[in-house]
Amino acid sequence: MTVEIDLKREIDHSYKIYIDTLARLTFRRKVAIVTNPTVSGLHLDYLLERLEAPTVEIVTLPDGERYKNWESIETILDTLFEARFNRSSLLIAFGGGVIGDMTGFAASIFQRGIDFIQIPTTLLAQVDASVGGKTGINNAYGKNLIGAFHQPRAVYADPHFLETLPKREFAAGVAEIVKMAVTFDAGFFEWLESADLSKHEVLAEAVARSVRTKAKVVAQDEKERGLRAALNYGHTFGHVIENETAYTTYLHGETVAIGMVMANTLAVELGLMTSDEAERVKRLLQRYELPVTYPVKDPERFYRTFFLDKKSGDDTITFILPRHIGGVEITNSIDKAQVMDVLERFRGA
Amino acid sequence: MTVEIDLKREIDHSYKIYIDTLARLTFRRKVAIVTNPTVSGLHLDYLLERLEAPTVEIVTLPDGERYKNWESIETILDTLFEARFNRSSLLIAFGGGVIGDMTGFAASIFQRGIDFIQIPTTLLAQVDASVGGKTGINNAYGKNLIGAFHQPRAVYADPHFLETLPKREFAAGVAEIVKMAVTFDAGFFEWLESADLSKHEVLAEAVARSVRTKAKVVAQDEKERGLRAALNYGHTFGHVIENETAYTTYLHGETVAIGMVMANTLAVELGLMTSDEAERVKRLLQRYELPVTYPVKDPERFYRTFFLDKKSGDDTITFILPRHIGGVEITNSIDKAQVMDVLERFRGA
Repeated sequence: MTVEIDLKREIDHSYKIYIDTLARLTFRRKVAIVTNPTVSGLHLDYLLERLEAPTVEIVTLPDGERYKNWESIETILDTLFEARFNRSSLLIAFGGGVIGDMTGFAASIFQRGIDFIQIPTTLLAQVDASVGGKTGINNAYGKNLIGAFHQPRAVYADPHFLETLPKREFAAGVAEIVKMAVTFDAGFFEWLESADLSKHEVLAEAVARSVRTKAKVVAQDEKERGLRAALNYGHTFGHVIENETAYTTYLHGETVAIGMVMANTLAVELGLMTSDEAERVKRLLQRYELPVTYPVKDPERFYRTFFLDKKSGDDTITFILPRHIGGVEITNSIDKAQVMDVLERFRGA
Repeated sequence: MTVEIDLKREIDHSYKIYIDTLARLTFRRKVAIVTNPTVSGLHLDYLLERLEAPTVEIVTLPDGERYKNWESIETILDTLFEARFNRSSLLIAFGGGVIGDMTGFAASIFQRGIDFIQIPTTLLAQVDASVGGKTGINNAYGKNLIGAFHQPRAVYADPHFLETLPKREFAAGVAEIVKMAVTFDAGFFEWLESADLSKHEVLAEAVARSVRTKAKVVAQDEKERGLRAALNYGHTFGHVIENETAYTTYLHGETVAIGMVMANTLAVELGLMTSDEAERVKRLLQRYELPVTYPVKDPERFYRTFFLDKKSGDDTITFILPRHIGGVEITNSIDKAQVMDVLERFRGA
C-alpha cells in the first residue's frame, strides 16, 4: 500500500534590503540582539535608540571566526529559553558575517525555526551575507559544515556602521563587490572603475547593485545546485590560501582578491579572458590596497588542498573562470598541468 | 534605497509512504543508517540484506529519549565527516520516533541539508513520525525545543518490524491511530471498532488510513500555524502527565490515551460530544489495554503545568476538544473552573 504525501507548495521567502540610515524599528514581540563586544561598544546605543519592543535581550558573543561554533549557538539558545522566548519571537543579527551566520542558524533551529533580521555592520556582510540565506557554524572538520538555509525577514544595511570600519575590512568588502561585477555585470565593473566609494551615496549605490546582482542569482538557485556556484569566483584559490595560512594572515575578502587574480591568470592561460581585462581587475583591486599575489611555496601541496573544499567533488575541482568581464564559466575539467603552470608562476611570488 | 529579494517559489517536498514488506533498496550514493542497539540487534541484518549502496556506514546511538540530545547529533555528524559524506549523501533513520527525530535533524543541518529516508520500526513511528517533517532534540529546557522541519524523501513502513514490538508499545501506537480517527474521521473510528489489528493486512490498512488523514492536515499546515494543532488532541493533558511522572511511568502513546479520555470528559462537560461517544472512545482504548485514567494528586499544580507546554501561550491553554467523533474544536478560552472540575473528578482516580 502506498500513501502519497503531497507537499507541493508556493513558498514566499521574499524580503527587502534597506540600504539607508536606520529608521525606527518597532516590534510587538520579544526581540534578542546577537552581537559581539566590538560592534556592541561602537554601535549598540545607536541601535537601541531606534528599537522598540516589549522585551530586548542582548547576547554578546566573543569576536572572531573561531567562536563560530556550537557553543556560541547554545549561548544564544539558552538566553532565549531563559527569557521564555517562543515561536513568534525575533532575533536580530547585529554584526559582521560571523554574527549573521550564527544568528541565522540559531533562528533556524529554535523551536524548529523563528524569524530573524540582519543589521550587518561590515561592508562584506552588507553585500554578501545579506543575500543567500546561508547560515551555519564551523567544526573540527572545516568551515560552515553545519548549518541551514534560512532567509531573513529583512536586512537593514546602514552606511553609518561602515564609518568605523578599519580600512582593510572595508577593502575586503570591496573585493566581494568586484567579484560580483566581474562575474555577472560588465557595466557595473566599468562604473566601479570610476566610482568614489568614500561618498555615502556612491557606496550605497555599489551595495545596491551588488546585492541586486546576487539576488538574481540566488532567486534562480536558492539551494546552490547550479548557477550559484559562480559566486565562488575567487574562492577556489582563496580557500586554499586561507587554509595554508590557517585563517590568520588574510581577511576572507583579501583571499578572494588574490583568488580572483589567480583565477584570471588561469583564464588568460586558457584563452578565455584577455590579459588586458585581467589587468583591469587587478588594478581595481590594487586601488583599494587589496593583496593581488600570494607566494605559493609548494604547488603540489597547494593543488592537493583544493580537494578539501566541500564545493569540489572527490576527484574534481570546480573552477569559476571569467570568459570576459561580466561573464564566467563553471568548469571541473581543467587539466592539472595547466593549473600547475599558474601555481608555478605564483611560486614564492 | 531598497532592494527586493524575491524568493517566491514552488517547492516540492512530496514523498511516498510504502506500507509493505521492504523491497530491495538501491542507492548510488553514500548511505548512513542511524539506529539503536535494540533495533540493530533484531533487524539490522534484515535491512542490510535488502540494501545496496557504494558505502554503508552504521551509527548506533544509545536507546531512549534521554539520549535525544546534541551529543547524539554530533555522533551522527562526526561519522559523516569522517567518512567524507557530501551533499548528495543519504541518511536512513532506522528505529522509532527518537531515531527518526534525530536522524532528520542531523540530515537537515549536515552541510545545510541532505536527504534522508525513514524506516520506522514501531507502530507509533509508522503512523505518527512518518508524516509531518518534524525533527529535533531535547535540551535542559524541555522536549523537542531545538529542531527543524525537514521532510523525508520516502518512508518505508514494513509490518515485519512490528512483530517483535512489545505489546505495550504496540498499544501506544494504536492510541495515536485512535486519536487520528476521533479528530478527523468518524468512518475510520467505526471501522477501528470492529477491526482486528493483529492481522497484517488489517493493520496495514489502519496505518494507511491514519497516515492519509495526517497527511491531509499537514499538507494544509506544514509549519503548524493552525489546523495542525488539532493533532495535539490528547496531548494537552498528556504532556502534564508525562511531566508529573518524569517521562518514566508511561509511554508517550499511553499518556495520549489518558489525555484523550480527560479531554473527552471536559468536552462532555461543555456540551460538545455526548457521554455515549466518550464511552465508545474509552472502550476502544481499553480493548488494547491502554490506561484511561490518571490519579491527579494536586489539581492546582496540574493546571499550572499546562503553561509549560510550548504549544500554549503565556497565559492561555490551547485545548483540542471533540465536538463529536470525527471533529474537534481548537480553543484557548476554557474557564479554569471547568478544567478544575474535570481534574477534581480524576483526583486520586
